[in-house]
Amino acid sequence: MIVAVNVHLKKGVLDPQGKAVHHALETLGFKDVDGVRVGKQILLDINTDDKEKAIEIAKKAADELLANPVIENYEIEVK
Amino acid sequence: MIVAVNVHLKKGVLDPQGKAVHHALETLGFKDVDGVRVGKQILLDINTDDKEKAIEIAKKAADELLANPVIENYEIEVK
Repeated sequence: MIVAVNVHLKKGVLDPQGKAVHHALETLGFKDVDGVRVGKQILLDINTDDKEKAIEIAKKAADELLANPVIENYEIEVK
Repeated sequence: MIVAVNVHLKKGVLDPQGKAVHHALETLGFKDVDGVRVGKQILLDINTDDKEKAIEIAKKAADELLANPVIENYEIEVK
């Protein structure tokens, strides 16, 4: 089962990569894009058919390794 | 409207960051994780209520800037 962990900087934390992409899109003529945030999507291939268990493992992995709780939020998404 | 563009390396393209995370998870005792792929999730704040238009803009942004078609795939996801 593939579970995605989406990691993004918390609101209020400066996201220079997002700002750079936003600026580049503006330069390319994208007028309707009001803001950009760039984060990570980590896809975990978890060896179980139990959705709850997969989510639990992904959450544990996010807490222990994938996200920095000081500056980042994450969300879990079963694919 | 927030639209996510999820960018990942194509299958067959070596993902050293994914391999490193996988190894780290194994070291931490995650036995049920069979594989890890690390990609980007770019959140676009698009100034429209029209879902089809938002998807179209996100697709254009992905084609023109966000993804490298030689080595990367992307998917669009309305949040």
